[in-house]
Amino acid sequence: MTAVAPNPAGLGRMPRREDARLVRGRGRFVDDIVLPGMLHGAVLRSPHAHARIVSVDTSAAESHPKVRAVLTGADLEARGMAWIPTPSHDVAAVLATDKVRYQGQEVAFVVAEDRYAARDALALIEVEYEDLPVVTDARTALDPDTPVIRDEMPGRTDNHVFDWESGDEAATDAVFAAADHVSRCELIYPRVHPAPLETCGVVAHLDPLDGRVTVHCTAQAPHTHRVLYSRITGIAESRIRVIAPDIGGGFGNKVAMYPGYLCALVGSMVTGAPVKWVEDRSENLMATSFARDFHMAGEIASTRDGRIRGVRVTVLADHGAFNATSQPSRFPAGFFGVFTGSYDLEAAHCRVTGVYTNKAPGGVAYACSFRITEASYLVERLVDVLAHDLGLDPAALRMANLLRPDQFPHATPTGWEYDSGDYPATLRLALDMAGYEQLRREQVESRAAYERTGQGTLTGVGISFFTEAVGAGPRRMMDIMGLGMADGADLRVHPSGGAQLAVSCMSQGQGHETTFAQIVAHELGIPYDEIVVVQGDTDRTPFGMGTYGSRSTPVSGAATVMAARKVRDRARLVAAAMLEVAADDLEWVPGRWQVRGVPTSGVSLREIAAAAHSDLDLPDGVEGHLDASCVYNPPNLTYPCGAYVCVVDVDPAIGTVDVRRFVAVDDCGVRINPTIVEGQIHGGLADGIGMALMELVTFDDAGNHLAASFMDYLLPTSMECPSWELGETVTPSPHHPIGAKGVGESATVGSPAAVVNAVLNAIGVRHADMPLTPAQVWCALQGTPLRTDRAIQ
Amino acid sequence: MTAVAPNPAGLGRMPRREDARLVRGRGRFVDDIVLPGMLHGAVLRSPHAHARIVSVDTSAAESHPKVRAVLTGADLEARGMAWIPTPSHDVAAVLATDKVRYQGQEVAFVVAEDRYAARDALALIEVEYEDLPVVTDARTALDPDTPVIRDEMPGRTDNHVFDWESGDEAATDAVFAAADHVSRCELIYPRVHPAPLETCGVVAHLDPLDGRVTVHCTAQAPHTHRVLYSRITGIAESRIRVIAPDIGGGFGNKVAMYPGYLCALVGSMVTGAPVKWVEDRSENLMATSFARDFHMAGEIASTRDGRIRGVRVTVLADHGAFNATSQPSRFPAGFFGVFTGSYDLEAAHCRVTGVYTNKAPGGVAYACSFRITEASYLVERLVDVLAHDLGLDPAALRMANLLRPDQFPHATPTGWEYDSGDYPATLRLALDMAGYEQLRREQVESRAAYERTGQGTLTGVGISFFTEAVGAGPRRMMDIMGLGMADGADLRVHPSGGAQLAVSCMSQGQGHETTFAQIVAHELGIPYDEIVVVQGDTDRTPFGMGTYGSRSTPVSGAATVMAARKVRDRARLVAAAMLEVAADDLEWVPGRWQVRGVPTSGVSLREIAAAAHSDLDLPDGVEGHLDASCVYNPPNLTYPCGAYVCVVDVDPAIGTVDVRRFVAVDDCGVRINPTIVEGQIHGGLADGIGMALMELVTFDDAGNHLAASFMDYLLPTSMECPSWELGETVTPSPHHPIGAKGVGESATVGSPAAVVNAVLNAIGVRHADMPLTPAQVWCALQGTPLRTDRAIQ
Repeated sequence: MTAVAPNPAGLGRMPRREDARLVRGRGRFVDDIVLPGMLHGAVLRSPHAHARIVSVDTSAAESHPKVRAVLTGADLEARGMAWIPTPSHDVAAVLATDKVRYQGQEVAFVVAEDRYAARDALALIEVEYEDLPVVTDARTALDPDTPVIRDEMPGRTDNHVFDWESGDEAATDAVFAAADHVSRCELIYPRVHPAPLETCGVVAHLDPLDGRVTVHCTAQAPHTHRVLYSRITGIAESRIRVIAPDIGGGFGNKVAMYPGYLCALVGSMVTGAPVKWVEDRSENLMATSFARDFHMAGEIASTRDGRIRGVRVTVLADHGAFNATSQPSRFPAGFFGVFTGSYDLEAAHCRVTGVYTNKAPGGVAYACSFRITEASYLVERLVDVLAHDLGLDPAALRMANLLRPDQFPHATPTGWEYDSGDYPATLRLALDMAGYEQLRREQVESRAAYERTGQGTLTGVGISFFTEAVGAGPRRMMDIMGLGMADGADLRVHPSGGAQLAVSCMSQGQGHETTFAQIVAHELGIPYDEIVVVQGDTDRTPFGMGTYGSRSTPVSGAATVMAARKVRDRARLVAAAMLEVAADDLEWVPGRWQVRGVPTSGVSLREIAAAAHSDLDLPDGVEGHLDASCVYNPPNLTYPCGAYVCVVDVDPAIGTVDVRRFVAVDDCGVRINPTIVEGQIHGGLADGIGMALMELVTFDDAGNHLAASFMDYLLPTSMECPSWELGETVTPSPHHPIGAKGVGESATVGSPAAVVNAVLNAIGVRHADMPLTPAQVWCALQGTPLRTDRAIQ
Repeated sequence: MTAVAPNPAGLGRMPRREDARLVRGRGRFVDDIVLPGMLHGAVLRSPHAHARIVSVDTSAAESHPKVRAVLTGADLEARGMAWIPTPSHDVAAVLATDKVRYQGQEVAFVVAEDRYAARDALALIEVEYEDLPVVTDARTALDPDTPVIRDEMPGRTDNHVFDWESGDEAATDAVFAAADHVSRCELIYPRVHPAPLETCGVVAHLDPLDGRVTVHCTAQAPHTHRVLYSRITGIAESRIRVIAPDIGGGFGNKVAMYPGYLCALVGSMVTGAPVKWVEDRSENLMATSFARDFHMAGEIASTRDGRIRGVRVTVLADHGAFNATSQPSRFPAGFFGVFTGSYDLEAAHCRVTGVYTNKAPGGVAYACSFRITEASYLVERLVDVLAHDLGLDPAALRMANLLRPDQFPHATPTGWEYDSGDYPATLRLALDMAGYEQLRREQVESRAAYERTGQGTLTGVGISFFTEAVGAGPRRMMDIMGLGMADGADLRVHPSGGAQLAVSCMSQGQGHETTFAQIVAHELGIPYDEIVVVQGDTDRTPFGMGTYGSRSTPVSGAATVMAARKVRDRARLVAAAMLEVAADDLEWVPGRWQVRGVPTSGVSLREIAAAAHSDLDLPDGVEGHLDASCVYNPPNLTYPCGAYVCVVDVDPAIGTVDVRRFVAVDDCGVRINPTIVEGQIHGGLADGIGMALMELVTFDDAGNHLAASFMDYLLPTSMECPSWELGETVTPSPHHPIGAKGVGESATVGSPAAVVNAVLNAIGVRHADMPLTPAQVWCALQGTPLRTDRAIQ
């Protein structure tokens, strides 16, 4: 990656402008916000996973000389804020009242003059608990004698959350009944954590003078946060300003509004001062949105020669103690529906059952549209199992079953419409880049050498092919989040010809300040350096759902293009008046309207902007200024795809895995800034290695969280990653105005299966669950792989 | 004035919401802005009014341990910023290079770690001056042997700035030649100062990381300031953010961008840190924009019985050493053209000649559209002189000559089109409220008693009738300021039904946060408390010219109404889709679209907003959200008017004046918030008493400023003001969407003549110039009134 001069056409490789401050340590994150008179909050958390609260005594804490307020569940109950409705049609506790339901749950909140005093005072709060039996195994959560975790809900007698299905069950059953062959496999996608570098935090202030609320917080979706604050507090949205400053990674972890945010706001209401609360690492790992935790029983039906006919799956989804604010609602399993993958199937069906357990709320969209990572992992694992069972080459099996370019747009058996793609070409490129045939020869040689000497490593080659479904508009967000808010773009051209773009999406590191400026430069010919991008402040940006599920480019990016084109259309009217010609006689060349066929007669956008602002004989329909807004409601999702080939060397003696090579060919349509796209892919590939090989949150039988620090929750570093080998195919999205598709999460979705397939391919094991730690690899080699939803010793 | 409950219709008396913070001392003014690492600036000013700079030695100052930078004219010259072009087609020095041209002119700028060190270091700068002859008398400024102040301009051989005329000279001369009677009078409108409570200041920061400039400054016109910063520094406007926080009074003083602002910005460029500079009182009084300083020779022609036929005037305008950034450009005398007043004239003509003198730049629009205060004073004084000369009652003379309602819209002989008014009714109401006949009887009695006893006071009754011309749009601003930028209003309705309005105008105390919310409440039926008004931040508000010349209500207010009506129209389309009826079948009742004739079938704006944001089956032409922008280019000015009656008691023995009563009947069309309108009028009346009786800036022959503190520059207090008696007539402006006219400056324009007329009426003197200090009254009584453009001993 090399920084190059700005591309005059706008799109292309550009250094990220936000890095000027970020790499110098000059970013402004929530914890950098210091307001006059600001107080500091700390959360008292439950040490128990399931216990009745007998009493809470805050008197000693309140006597601490620096403590200004102590909030308990009872205090919030008096304000009607102890429980908050979630968009998932559930409620979640802010501070526990009757019971605690997972270890780390919020029980009390101390507001003090400094952070040290606030933390000190936590120890002065005396809570008497009465232990209750703990439910940590989702598979027993629905047993009749299992304790009911959500017994505060009237009439509730079990831990069932929802049932959801997708696809035609009868048709699928018929396909399976008629199939030559069916492979079955049970898979666990274990609980993992997004673990952003910056933990969550907030500075909340209700100004007693004007009743306005300003909340600086780590939010991927500032406008959604504002709606939630309004719904919970009853304060009108128009009196609430949510500001998300620089955000140090989101990955879905910062979609939700956490109890600490609301406690800080209530703390400000009580004290009249701004209140800051920033998690520590352990709090983030213990109590903020988890992902995955799916137990999947999958089946794949095929002809004898490997023509795949159908997929069938039943899932048990562990949602923890609450269906949290960032979880799906009407369709609780959301994008799991694309479990049909990239293949030409006759039928498919899935059934997902959600259960409550004594764990922190899960089910978040960790660097993927809700549940799509699980779906993609499932089908790509099943294809490899099928290849294993039929003795076929997994590359050839995929190539034979991938959707063909002439099948697009493609309606899947589960009701999705894939927009575009050339899947065979994408896989072929990946195999060519990897030198697939040569790799297979190396694999044979490595096994032969190992079997000959009993030493050395086993080479494995793993393939995955994924289709992502990203860029949800308000209709789908309304379905899955219970809240729809179409995304807007407001574009203003200055009298001098520079521009300011405000968008509803919110970067957590994706480089929006760069790419959105490039889009405007591309559409209007305005120099990149003269375009400023505004985001993350509800008072300064149009409404919209925010950034997750790779929405920014497909949705806000489209809105930006369309706003720019509206500006261009208005500029044409002004130009026609300036040149005294009919608008139809003008043609656009980048940055300029000119008389068709007369290049010397034209006006630049800069001249047009100056005229629109200060010259006053404007044509009808142009009031003045040169700006436009667009609200974009996408007609469909965009469907990026990719083919990944992973090469590993496994030491069977000690179970270690070395990811030697990783070839990733991504098709995300037109790339606005290839450098940034590649950065996103790099990050997602590392994610995949982490999930496949090391990341795991488990609990002991008492519900104790066993990975509450980075000593126990292992994240991949550059040491675990090879030098990525990237390639691309380009099939523009037909319904995005510049053909771009979202790419922020593609590699996270696509890579785990490639790594797992590679390791299992190396050791010749049909299936073992992630993470493939040395212990798991070794156990798998002994024929006794571990259950990774339980504590691994 | 009593605070009352919000008027559901929106308009009406309301307490000012901004007062919640302002009266508690919780406003956030420029000097309250503290940024991390902020440095402090101080200005070295010239002690001389006219001197050549021989040398400037900054070495000692630079050695001060806390000094971080010292800027001189030479430093700025190296950056091409020593001189800045003004919209008046002049240039003005930022830091003096060749000469100093008035006492207090900026010579150097010190940036230090604290304000104390910065001020201390000023004394360490050694400047060698060579004195030059000083020009302080405008009447000799054009004499051949007078030194040329602006000799840096190539080829310049005199102190002439401009000549400007208005009206038909030949026609006017003909009317005068044929008139039965002509009264003549020479009048001085002396130099005064706006003297806002808060002085001027700035915190400027060029962030070296991203090259963006953020300027917090005392600005009445943030967007105009941004354009100026951009033009001067060459930094694109889109990279500059100007924020005007709470402003403690403007009155025209904060339209201009002063050298200190630019020095602070250059100081930030040099040091990389934010730089604050805030004037002290003496600096504000000595070196920021002055007003008036007009020498006027007026003539009024009439029939024998007092039918006024024409007005003719020649003016010498003292502009100081530079034609400053807030001064008129193509029409340097600007609104002086309405010197025809409120009368039905056959012809009128004026000629204005501007000259440079060794004084700080003047000519600012101090609480009036440029020069209209002078014009109004002139004509109302001339009418009284005519009454004096013809032995007519000044009330009857005015009543006989006022424009009649059937003469509107009225084209004046000088090319203005008055929009509406009922002048006779307005004057009649004022006279009735005052009990005019009774007052005249009291006057006779007081004089008789005085003449009988040689003791006591003399009662005087003064009348003025004014027509203001306010609410200039971009066309006129382009003419007079060299910069046009139509004013916008951006209105967003939240999903919950609350709203946010962003406007380009900027309150300096006028209560925009209240009145603009009322306008939106009025138009859309949204509860007042749920409407937030944003102003004063170029990144958050639409472009526009800002607040001066009583522009806010006529221009931004109209833009707001029209944006609200666009929202209403869009809401109608959404409502039609929701109700499944044709849009034409819907009727608007405040806050709600309902089926015509079926009041039970309708949807509230709140419901419509929720649907527009989240429901997705929106009709064609409605993308989503519920918002609208409007850019308003007014077709004409609005013309408020008023009749004022002032009653004074003068002690002829010592010359003191007691303003006993003041009746003010204002017609500003529809009043959005009568409480705020009355507050504006109260302030303007006090202004008028100040100018008429005490405020004065003069200079000695060496050019020394003789009123550089509030010990010498006397401002009126409540002790000098009577309990105001206010009345109103209402003739809505026909071209403002709710019929409002600007009123912020009416009383400042109308009141000085009433007070002067009253005092001179009391003492029976035909004319004496303002301010009518005890000394001036006493001298006038002796038949030797003072020249108030010169130092009064």
